[in-house]
Amino acid sequence: MLDWSSDPFHNRTVLTLAGDAPGVTAALLAVYEVAAATIDIRRHHGVHPRVGAVDVVPLVPLAGISSGACVALARALGRLVAERFGVPVFLYEDAATRPERRALENIRRGQLAGLTRRMNQPQWRPDFGPRTPHPAAGVSVIGARSILIAFNVNLATDDLTVAREIARTVRASGGGLPHVKAIGVQLGGGRVQVAMNLTNYCQTPLQRAFDAVRLEAARRGVAVAGSELVGLIPADALDAAGAHHLQLEDFGPERLLETHLGGPLATPGAPWES
Amino acid sequence: MLDWSSDPFHNRTVLTLAGDAPGVTAALLAVYEVAAATIDIRRHHGVHPRVGAVDVVPLVPLAGISSGACVALARALGRLVAERFGVPVFLYEDAATRPERRALENIRRGQLAGLTRRMNQPQWRPDFGPRTPHPAAGVSVIGARSILIAFNVNLATDDLTVAREIARTVRASGGGLPHVKAIGVQLGGGRVQVAMNLTNYCQTPLQRAFDAVRLEAARRGVAVAGSELVGLIPADALDAAGAHHLQLEDFGPERLLETHLGGPLATPGAPWES
Repeated sequence: MLDWSSDPFHNRTVLTLAGDAPGVTAALLAVYEVAAATIDIRRHHGVHPRVGAVDVVPLVPLAGISSGACVALARALGRLVAERFGVPVFLYEDAATRPERRALENIRRGQLAGLTRRMNQPQWRPDFGPRTPHPAAGVSVIGARSILIAFNVNLATDDLTVAREIARTVRASGGGLPHVKAIGVQLGGGRVQVAMNLTNYCQTPLQRAFDAVRLEAARRGVAVAGSELVGLIPADALDAAGAHHLQLEDFGPERLLETHLGGPLATPGAPWES
Repeated sequence: MLDWSSDPFHNRTVLTLAGDAPGVTAALLAVYEVAAATIDIRRHHGVHPRVGAVDVVPLVPLAGISSGACVALARALGRLVAERFGVPVFLYEDAATRPERRALENIRRGQLAGLTRRMNQPQWRPDFGPRTPHPAAGVSVIGARSILIAFNVNLATDDLTVAREIARTVRASGGGLPHVKAIGVQLGGGRVQVAMNLTNYCQTPLQRAFDAVRLEAARRGVAVAGSELVGLIPADALDAAGAHHLQLEDFGPERLLETHLGGPLATPGAPWES
């Protein structure tokens, strides 16, 4: 487990697991086992949309594995989860079996209640498992995709409509930035958040999404209070944001010492700001 | 050779060499040999201060070598250079033999003419070699230090006084940012530049130096046209600038996938902007 994060407003835990195919499969089955024993989706509250106790499992090829192998792994895991836990499984993104199921937000539309209604239709039959949700664990969505950056920008206002308006403006489905999904959510302490998924950070980098939210917020007289990453990110996503801030001309990874040395430096300490 | 850069205005080439002590010593002696055969400092023009054909050689511990070993290497190289090429050598920074010779700008004050005059005084006797500069190759400054970032910010004006004023304001010696050296220089094409050295990027990060120059320029109605790095930088310097731009809360290297995986990812392509 490389990373985990959790907060009471989203009421959602994001785990980042890395390993070979058998290791990751075993770890994920353990996650399902604990979730099935401890989470009742009927009594669940939180600002983030969800359809199940183990809501979504994306398998991402990091190194030494192909996208196709991750699709095969998603299918094998889906079959096991349905068999062992009686949970209906939908395959999504690169593992989707129907075009309308590629996008997670399509599967999750109307959350568990909405999906439950659709499951009676032939085109919304689950890929594995029963045609009705598990009473406590709901439904699970499993798939394969490339790296996604979950990036949330907090606004210095308690007005949820501002966050929702900005989310609608910046997201791809509203004619905004390509490869960006966004929703507005309410946090505690007089803050709202634009919660984003960047599905192709090479095409739409972090800084462009951040700058778009900041500009839209400023237009409404609202400041950005801060931002957060959920899970881990590739270093080049952050390097590009740094090069952007510094207005560096002709920057590329060949300008980094580590690129040439093939390993970390013995530096005195990183310049992270508090 | 990891990197080199050169431009007609500075009329100066910066080479980045990495290797073990014998390899780096052999490579540097080859640099001196070519420079002695091809460069005549008497006929040299350029906006950057200098005292010799091989102006300055900083030895930087990157991995698997101590600062003390780099000091010893600087002394050994200085002796060889003086013997083989008849060039006076001053040791600087961690290798300095007198406190007033630690800072490169003290040695280079008044450039070669100024240093030549001082070399008659006992406290400005070179560490190795003759007490008068080599006619064509001048003097050479050799030392050991930690990583320095050479970072230049280009301004959208041809008014050199603006760059000089900003340099005086932001540099440590003018009561500005700690660990920052800065000069204003004239470039071609209606541009001037604030050329900076950041001698401790963990204490004064890139983004703080950049933001200071940008603010001082804006106060004078001048925009930043871009920036450039001379040589290579450590990745964490750029990561910190990215985290700063994105207003990331609680960011650290543990949020990077590569930190956990111990190697590069197989990513589809970096998000560098044109």
